[in-house]
Amino acid sequence: MNRKIMIDCDPGQDDAMALMLAASSISNLRIEAITTVAGNVDVDKNTRNALRLCDLLELKDVPVAKGASRPLVREMLIAADIHGKSGLDGTAMPEQPVKQTVRVHGADLIIEKLLASEEAITLVPTGPLTNIAMAIRKEPGIIPKIREIVLMGGGTYGNRTPAAEFNIFADAEAAKIVFESGAPIAMFGLDVTHQARANAETIEEIRAIGNPVATAVSDMLTFYLNAYQGLLGRTSAAIHDPCPVAYLIDPSIFQLEPVHVDVETKGEFTYGMTCVHKGVASDHVNAKFAGKLDPKKFWDLFYRALTTYSS
Amino acid sequence: MNRKIMIDCDPGQDDAMALMLAASSISNLRIEAITTVAGNVDVDKNTRNALRLCDLLELKDVPVAKGASRPLVREMLIAADIHGKSGLDGTAMPEQPVKQTVRVHGADLIIEKLLASEEAITLVPTGPLTNIAMAIRKEPGIIPKIREIVLMGGGTYGNRTPAAEFNIFADAEAAKIVFESGAPIAMFGLDVTHQARANAETIEEIRAIGNPVATAVSDMLTFYLNAYQGLLGRTSAAIHDPCPVAYLIDPSIFQLEPVHVDVETKGEFTYGMTCVHKGVASDHVNAKFAGKLDPKKFWDLFYRALTTYSS
Amino acid sequence: MNRKIMIDCDPGQDDAMALMLAASSISNLRIEAITTVAGNVDVDKNTRNALRLCDLLELKDVPVAKGASRPLVREMLIAADIHGKSGLDGTAMPEQPVKQTVRVHGADLIIEKLLASEEAITLVPTGPLTNIAMAIRKEPGIIPKIREIVLMGGGTYGNRTPAAEFNIFADAEAAKIVFESGAPIAMFGLDVTHQARANAETIEEIRAIGNPVATAVSDMLTFYLNAYQGLLGRTSAAIHDPCPVAYLIDPSIFQLEPVHVDVETKGEFTYGMTCVHKGVASDHVNAKFAGKLDPKKFWDLFYRALTTYSS
Amino acid sequence: MNRKIMIDCDPGQDDAMALMLAASSISNLRIEAITTVAGNVDVDKNTRNALRLCDLLELKDVPVAKGASRPLVREMLIAADIHGKSGLDGTAMPEQPVKQTVRVHGADLIIEKLLASEEAITLVPTGPLTNIAMAIRKEPGIIPKIREIVLMGGGTYGNRTPAAEFNIFADAEAAKIVFESGAPIAMFGLDVTHQARANAETIEEIRAIGNPVATAVSDMLTFYLNAYQGLLGRTSAAIHDPCPVAYLIDPSIFQLEPVHVDVETKGEFTYGMTCVHKGVASDHVNAKFAGKLDPKKFWDLFYRALTTYSS
Repeated sequence: MNRKIMIDCDPGQDDAMALMLAASSISNLRIEAITTVAGNVDVDKNTRNALRLCDLLELKDVPVAKGASRPLVREMLIAADIHGKSGLDGTAMPEQPVKQTVRVHGADLIIEKLLASEEAITLVPTGPLTNIAMAIRKEPGIIPKIREIVLMGGGTYGNRTPAAEFNIFADAEAAKIVFESGAPIAMFGLDVTHQARANAETIEEIRAIGNPVATAVSDMLTFYLNAYQGLLGRTSAAIHDPCPVAYLIDPSIFQLEPVHVDVETKGEFTYGMTCVHKGVASDHVNAKFAGKLDPKKFWDLFYRALTTYSS
Repeated sequence: MNRKIMIDCDPGQDDAMALMLAASSISNLRIEAITTVAGNVDVDKNTRNALRLCDLLELKDVPVAKGASRPLVREMLIAADIHGKSGLDGTAMPEQPVKQTVRVHGADLIIEKLLASEEAITLVPTGPLTNIAMAIRKEPGIIPKIREIVLMGGGTYGNRTPAAEFNIFADAEAAKIVFESGAPIAMFGLDVTHQARANAETIEEIRAIGNPVATAVSDMLTFYLNAYQGLLGRTSAAIHDPCPVAYLIDPSIFQLEPVHVDVETKGEFTYGMTCVHKGVASDHVNAKFAGKLDPKKFWDLFYRALTTYSS
Repeated sequence: MNRKIMIDCDPGQDDAMALMLAASSISNLRIEAITTVAGNVDVDKNTRNALRLCDLLELKDVPVAKGASRPLVREMLIAADIHGKSGLDGTAMPEQPVKQTVRVHGADLIIEKLLASEEAITLVPTGPLTNIAMAIRKEPGIIPKIREIVLMGGGTYGNRTPAAEFNIFADAEAAKIVFESGAPIAMFGLDVTHQARANAETIEEIRAIGNPVATAVSDMLTFYLNAYQGLLGRTSAAIHDPCPVAYLIDPSIFQLEPVHVDVETKGEFTYGMTCVHKGVASDHVNAKFAGKLDPKKFWDLFYRALTTYSS
Repeated sequence: MNRKIMIDCDPGQDDAMALMLAASSISNLRIEAITTVAGNVDVDKNTRNALRLCDLLELKDVPVAKGASRPLVREMLIAADIHGKSGLDGTAMPEQPVKQTVRVHGADLIIEKLLASEEAITLVPTGPLTNIAMAIRKEPGIIPKIREIVLMGGGTYGNRTPAAEFNIFADAEAAKIVFESGAPIAMFGLDVTHQARANAETIEEIRAIGNPVATAVSDMLTFYLNAYQGLLGRTSAAIHDPCPVAYLIDPSIFQLEPVHVDVETKGEFTYGMTCVHKGVASDHVNAKFAGKLDPKKFWDLFYRALTTYSS
């Protein structure tokens, strides 16, 4: 697979790992743009973090654009302290990035790139879907230029509420727009991302790789794991966002099935739930749903990607 | 444990097994009344089936009252053909029962019994919660006389829709009333009932017991399993309704935790979802949630109960 | 017209005037029963007030039954102080009634009377529709015995919220049940009851009649008008509840048109709105909607009714 | 008053009259831009109509930009045939406009103009609020540059449904965004626009003015009135969209009061209702609500404006 992709994110330690994976020499992915969105923390912090990660990963030619500062319709939601004050605590990366954003809104950069490219481009959202939804509504003509939307979000159960996962809960109207858009979707929700668990051992293995990227990742993971342990008392943590990127590099890591997804926007207790209907007639399918991953293959890929960075 | 109970049901093969369990010599439960409710099939069929089961189980002194013929607010829902045309297909029991109902509405029988008893009584609903809700609203004075509501319903995922289990989906407003009533609740939803699975082997074991009740149960189970296989292509089937009764006979079969349950009544795609919040502050707890059962202990109890019936 | 009626109410000064109208010698209405419901104040106060009014109006043979103490699904709502602490302030009637209630729930009395009567009976609800809904759900067989439900409630705009009138807002699920029941309905909502306005002059006219009932009514009206003036700064007040009774005595006072009414139970800001569709196809009609009254005819009837009481 | 304004519209015969009013010599309004939105008909037709009107009104220097082709979240709605197939039937204007659009999205033109202007600009939306909402969400920095949003939409009752007016019903999520934005709003809903009624006499008066603009307006009005008569059997028709423009020219025509408006987006039957709370505390006010207009003053202004166009 050799794909053009655009990553829409709110980094976030696990977004950082998704970027690392996508930027590694083994990925065969060409990152056309990175856009940021309000999510884990506010969009200004997210944008600064995206730029810092580009510095680290030496993504000099990839344009970065700041996107939506808040959800489409609902009020803004701020994530728990899992990611630290900066949204990307735990690393020794310089506070201020060298790289600068391009002066265009994230949603507009997505539109521009899609309309300008002859080849269809894959979108990889790892945060709330506000930018993608805004782009689709502003320029419906982009739909045929979207090869696939391979996203982290949703699930048959929630983490932000019993019914809803954070990214979808943070902007369910945007998610509804995306799932009803007609673009091909592959959904990596909690059902599968909870199978990508890091623990103390994972950190050891990564730190042993020894290059600066691996060191930064192991630092971030240490912070993330400590936060999880402090808040939830768990000794392992799900690494959500790298899943869609891992799928684009090696689809054989995952099992997917065709489904129909409805996004709840009206419920009293269920706002942001992705209602996943399995076994539906083919003309009712609007997404592929990732239900299983092979943890060994996933982590092997992850370690291998880290190894490709120079010391 | 020696408890007075009232069973509110819509038999249904698995309701039948719940009744069998409750009526067996090992149960230490005193069935004060049986009430019926529209659910799997219409309330008239359910009532006839309840009477036929009383004949089979020789429950001569237990009053049976017909209850609600439809949900409180929403329109009536009819279950899939899993239970057959009569609602209790597959047995050689006579079509027409000998036993007759008492001429009082199910909700009123529940009220009467509770108000008349000095000892608090445990309610065991295995169908939609319409009668219980109606009783609570008509006579709020019954709440202190309810020892516990030990119910089959709900779960963190659904079977009727991706979000909702059949019993709660069939009358979510009634479920909301019950969960907000202040009465102690133990909830046996899909998470746990899906661990009580019968298969061809189960049927063999039951048939081998050889008494008429065991034979009837194995007949019903055969029909039920075939229906499951035909509709869903599965070789085992969850036996939902006996779970709450098994819990009352031997609580050690199950693991429960305190939770807060909200019932969704407004959602576009999530009507009837039970949103189960775990790890909540104790003053916010409104139910105990059964998450695990020990299958060996469960089936041992089940077989043992069947053995107590005379040949 | 000579009709059997049952009045379901939450007195309330304007419920009192409705009762007075119905019990007067000119009404040609036979009051079969009076039932009470939580609404303006709690059901115990409402019941006491109903009994006091029966004493005043010498309704010795009319059974009075206490009904629902709270709404079907939603939480209880308490009305503003428009009716005073007792729910019926302002009169010199004895605090404690002589008359006693019959010992049956209001919903059950409605069911009993309907099933026992050969002639169909008209229901006149002037409070929240909880009892009527409960009766319909408990015994669907009453529907053909209901001649008409002539109710005070709803409107194309609200008084409790911008969208909802008090009686429907207080129990919208009950209202939904009633409007979807198939029983013939005549709806007297704010659009028409706001045309039945009393002011200082009205009170004078009534007081001048001079019999004890007229005096009590003028006392109540004085209290009610003062409350209106204090809360809303208005010098006249709408007399809602007598409208449906006036219609039953002399339909020519009102203009009605066939409509379809939907009751909103899901909205964020519109719970309890009656959405009145005019000009619908005849098979979609579920109510007659009163849009206009002739104030002169209305008050003439009202004064005339008062005059029939003995001094 | 001398104001910079931008008109966001879906012409539409009454949008055309709003434009005529704004472009007349008596208006003292400077039209900075015209943007179009899907509404009465699709956005391409609306845009063509806006350009044709610019040709007629000789608005050579005003940029026109095409905006949103569909609502933000909900599915697209197509208006009834009140406006004819082109959306602006009835005139002798050339089918194809001379004027061309600027190649920028309507929402972006609104953002650009606001950010570039030192003076705050008044927005005048006469269609669904999609563009305005999109602009607010894409660039929250525009809020302080918005002098006021003077809009046609909503009301205490509906025309598209019993609860909702067409413009708000067509995109209630957009309306919610606008009303919650913090920008000053003056709302001209059905309560007031239904007082601006044209009839056969109005058409006569306008036709008598004799210049080409007046002739075109009288032609459009003739079509519009005939459509109303055909569909609704009425001999007069409400001229909704000129109201906000008339207010900007002569506020004394109208009576406004401070209110709080909530927009319903969740209801089953009430989607798109504007719930208008009157008499609220000043810190809860989010709009001024126009409740009354002086018809004589309104039509005098209208005729006077038409007279200023050259023969």
